[in-house]
Amino acid sequence: MYPDSLKYLIESFKTLPGIGEKTAERLAFSTFSLEKEQLELFSSSLIDVHNKIHKCNNCNLLTDKDCCYICSDSTRTNILCVVEDSKNVFLFEKNGMFHGKYHVLDGLISPLDGVNPEDIGLPKLLDRIQKEKFDEIIFALKPSIEGETTALYIKRILEGLDVKITRLASGVPIGADMEYLDSLTLERALTDRKLIE
Amino acid sequence: MYPDSLKYLIESFKTLPGIGEKTAERLAFSTFSLEKEQLELFSSSLIDVHNKIHKCNNCNLLTDKDCCYICSDSTRTNILCVVEDSKNVFLFEKNGMFHGKYHVLDGLISPLDGVNPEDIGLPKLLDRIQKEKFDEIIFALKPSIEGETTALYIKRILEGLDVKITRLASGVPIGADMEYLDSLTLERALTDRKLIE
Repeated sequence: MYPDSLKYLIESFKTLPGIGEKTAERLAFSTFSLEKEQLELFSSSLIDVHNKIHKCNNCNLLTDKDCCYICSDSTRTNILCVVEDSKNVFLFEKNGMFHGKYHVLDGLISPLDGVNPEDIGLPKLLDRIQKEKFDEIIFALKPSIEGETTALYIKRILEGLDVKITRLASGVPIGADMEYLDSLTLERALTDRKLIE
Repeated sequence: MYPDSLKYLIESFKTLPGIGEKTAERLAFSTFSLEKEQLELFSSSLIDVHNKIHKCNNCNLLTDKDCCYICSDSTRTNILCVVEDSKNVFLFEKNGMFHGKYHVLDGLISPLDGVNPEDIGLPKLLDRIQKEKFDEIIFALKPSIEGETTALYIKRILEGLDVKITRLASGVPIGADMEYLDSLTLERALTDRKLIE
């Protein structure tokens, strides 16, 4: 029914998460109103992200260089932030409040999903910690069973090393309605309560 | 912050309607999990829709041939359905209940938006009506002021021709909650009420 290229474009949009039939059709039709240059950039960047972008040799962050722009920045402080995904690094960087370095794990330990400690790229992290001698290691992992398990597992391996090990604070998100909080978050917020000064 | 190609891909997704910063980032990152072949098809179809798809010489439907698959189908009945957009044709065809031909206008008459009768490609439609001698012309235009104006305008031009001119029925959509109906729809549904047989 649709001309071939339009059909393939609709199918392509449908492979993306959260995009169903109707949305894929709407998006595909909307490309008719784009400039030729915009379409060419769109088209080439799809191929380029596959061909040019890979993990940084040092920290696993997605980059188009051998060494990412953070690892090659000598002004960064000696604090290491361990995250689950490159996306988290870009989130922190957008925010601009952290000036240390990062290390991106290959996921979180989750035995139920078949992800064991040897699957998340720990040797690379441990090598790096021994070489770069950080003052502090912050675990910025999801506050879930998998995130806590992973942080605890790595902390145990690092025992004996002279390094401060911390995790992000858990608690009530700013602006949240108290009534929608789950009980675990509330419990953590209560346990970690702070003195008002 | 982002590697160039990833940045361009996020920007490209943002040019699409209804896609904001966060969604564009999510979609761009999701392409990392696509196969190389999928990305290549996605990439090439973006270019192809621009280069290969154009309007059918006869009916204006988007096609990659000189004459679209409907105009070149000799089994179609001699009824013409006039629509505003190629999308509507694909919608009808998906539904599969109409077996006639189509004509796609270049939009609807809307003096407030600067779209006058001479802007919507009427000569091509009138030429075709005189040449192909249809038994019936159905206006399947949006039930809005613009849609009704356009249908009435064309009907007036066709006066004197021996052809039945109809429009889609307006009324209560199946499954709709009565309380959410606008008063115009309700009025139309009441006027066009049908005898229960």
